[in-house]
Amino acid sequence: MSKSRLEAFSDGVFAVIITIMVLDMKVPRGTDLQALKSVLPVFLCYVLSYLYVGIYWNNHHHLLHASQHVTGGILWANLILLFCLSLAPFTTAWMGENDYAPLPVAIYGAMLLAAGIAYFVLTRTLIAHHGDKSVLARSIGNDWKGRTSMLLYAFAIPMAFIKSWISCAGYALVAIMWLLPDRRIEKQVHA
Amino acid sequence: MSKSRLEAFSDGVFAVIITIMVLDMKVPRGTDLQALKSVLPVFLCYVLSYLYVGIYWNNHHHLLHASQHVTGGILWANLILLFCLSLAPFTTAWMGENDYAPLPVAIYGAMLLAAGIAYFVLTRTLIAHHGDKSVLARSIGNDWKGRTSMLLYAFAIPMAFIKSWISCAGYALVAIMWLLPDRRIEKQVHA
Amino acid sequence: MSKSRLEAFSDGVFAVIITIMVLDMKVPRGTDLQALKSVLPVFLCYVLSYLYVGIYWNNHHHLLHASQHVTGGILWANLILLFCLSLAPFTTAWMGENDYAPLPVAIYGAMLLAAGIAYFVLTRTLIAHHGDKSVLARSIGNDWKGRTSMLLYAFAIPMAFIKSWISCAGYALVAIMWLLPDRRIEKQVHA
Amino acid sequence: MSKSRLEAFSDGVFAVIITIMVLDMKVPRGTDLQALKSVLPVFLCYVLSYLYVGIYWNNHHHLLHASQHVTGGILWANLILLFCLSLAPFTTAWMGENDYAPLPVAIYGAMLLAAGIAYFVLTRTLIAHHGDKSVLARSIGNDWKGRTSMLLYAFAIPMAFIKSWISCAGYALVAIMWLLPDRRIEKQVHA
Repeated sequence: MSKSRLEAFSDGVFAVIITIMVLDMKVPRGTDLQALKSVLPVFLCYVLSYLYVGIYWNNHHHLLHASQHVTGGILWANLILLFCLSLAPFTTAWMGENDYAPLPVAIYGAMLLAAGIAYFVLTRTLIAHHGDKSVLARSIGNDWKGRTSMLLYAFAIPMAFIKSWISCAGYALVAIMWLLPDRRIEKQVHA
Repeated sequence: MSKSRLEAFSDGVFAVIITIMVLDMKVPRGTDLQALKSVLPVFLCYVLSYLYVGIYWNNHHHLLHASQHVTGGILWANLILLFCLSLAPFTTAWMGENDYAPLPVAIYGAMLLAAGIAYFVLTRTLIAHHGDKSVLARSIGNDWKGRTSMLLYAFAIPMAFIKSWISCAGYALVAIMWLLPDRRIEKQVHA
Repeated sequence: MSKSRLEAFSDGVFAVIITIMVLDMKVPRGTDLQALKSVLPVFLCYVLSYLYVGIYWNNHHHLLHASQHVTGGILWANLILLFCLSLAPFTTAWMGENDYAPLPVAIYGAMLLAAGIAYFVLTRTLIAHHGDKSVLARSIGNDWKGRTSMLLYAFAIPMAFIKSWISCAGYALVAIMWLLPDRRIEKQVHA
Repeated sequence: MSKSRLEAFSDGVFAVIITIMVLDMKVPRGTDLQALKSVLPVFLCYVLSYLYVGIYWNNHHHLLHASQHVTGGILWANLILLFCLSLAPFTTAWMGENDYAPLPVAIYGAMLLAAGIAYFVLTRTLIAHHGDKSVLARSIGNDWKGRTSMLLYAFAIPMAFIKSWISCAGYALVAIMWLLPDRRIEKQVHA
């Protein structure tokens, strides 16, 4: 199966998701500072979601770079990951337009958690196909970052119903953790 | 003619269709469970349509992988298939926003049937060009899945005017049938 | 300069234009036949515009296939063509939502004429770079189809202010003329 | 790391940004000349933004053509540039729909300035990786065009609060300056 077409399709979906989110930043009515300020909460959500989609694209790029084969199962694991991320424009807009109300903040976190699980399943499907001793398997290793992310999501989601800014801080923390580029795969590929 | 550009263009269209559909999931007014529930019917339609576009992309991927040449006729057969699928955001939204009313459900099925016929025409055009004894022709075989799908659509569409959930179950059944990956082409390619 | 990236970018723009147009087909209010009928004029416009974008993509595909080099001038001639086509979602929606009123129909034709001129400029820029005796130049030849199209547009546009259906028939006629695939380049490439 | 996937993803984002902006040109209510005129200010903004995205795509094309390696840092510098440009549909619409009011015009310029800085950072990151004596470094040279652009932005942005047409003239001037294609890299590559 051709890896390049999977990458091309995924790149297309990543590109559309990342660009379409900004369409949810509706043009404000007025032209004064007040109008600009009203866009701020949606803008901050957009920044966070842009970071997340960027991180996933980056990791996806590294993951497939270290892979050699693509099977039907891998295609579908990839489609499920893209499905979770394709909900980002919806969850971002709902959270941003409602001043970070509890339920939208929790649902945003649930979307992140679902994407995290889907990414985990994708890595496992790839490792199952490439073998435990493949470059891919060694480079992913024990995946402490992925595990920590899911723990943080699981903690941050219920916090939305107490103080929603704690949840948002949790989501931002995970993003910052991932922004430190994933040296694991790079290291192994060049080893 | 270059197969790679046909694939790139098709991937672009598939990626945009699949991502744009979620734009029809309008952000609900409130922030309580009731508001979230109101999105549910559109969300379920979105899942179904996502599955269908994913299935078509997957099968399209296999089909072109087994092809060697692209002609003007194949380009247009492909464009007609993409046209049918490009109506998915419209039919999905109409069905989802109207609580699965009879006519929208039937039109959704008609769109699926049209896409099924267009895919059938595309496979026939490809076989006509590659010959009856090509890897492609042998791998498609008698295409029982394609034929069964069209029979199921033809049965499910009129059912919309009696009980629309029967139609939806029919559409979902076809999707599940296709989710079992198409081993036919894979088998022949590696034979 | 790399031809492949010009193709990839153009394919992306073509794919987005063709898919985004359907977003202008707003979901009708009701769920009866009357509601479906109200979508018909926009749907027919969508079909026509889809055909045109498909034709341009097809011809663009052949044109670049026969080209070897890409220069800064060619990049910009290509961007101007894509600009004209990117107006299609706007002109299509304006025409379709206003029952083919004279001015929108004329503006739709003006967009087609502008795209036709831009495509002509692109072919001339490519020929200027590849030489009069190149495969490209011989395969384009006297370009009677391009010239006839522009004459037909020039005739059809003012007709919008007398009988707008005559204009639409003219636009459809040009599309049908082009749907017969452009054998000129194919013939020369294989000669 | 694979350069081709960075290009494919960037092309996707460029293609979506450039096409989605036209969606902000809302179809006018009437069908007379007055209605068409009402679209004019948004249309002119669209032309300007299209030119800018086209210029960035063109320069990005040349820049990566002269690059050999891609690192995590380069991926993120590229994502930041794309982020700035992805705000173009928002700033374009806000400026166009408000008759070039001071604040929207200034914000539009701020977006251009941010994109200019991001592009500058991207070139520095690339040079840092390729070395001062690389083809890339020599071809960028002292980057007088980039520096002049930022000076012009810095001058044009505050002018929005005095006479907004001066700002717009400044933005247009920078675009015209860049439309003269960047011969620097082309020259060095072929030297």
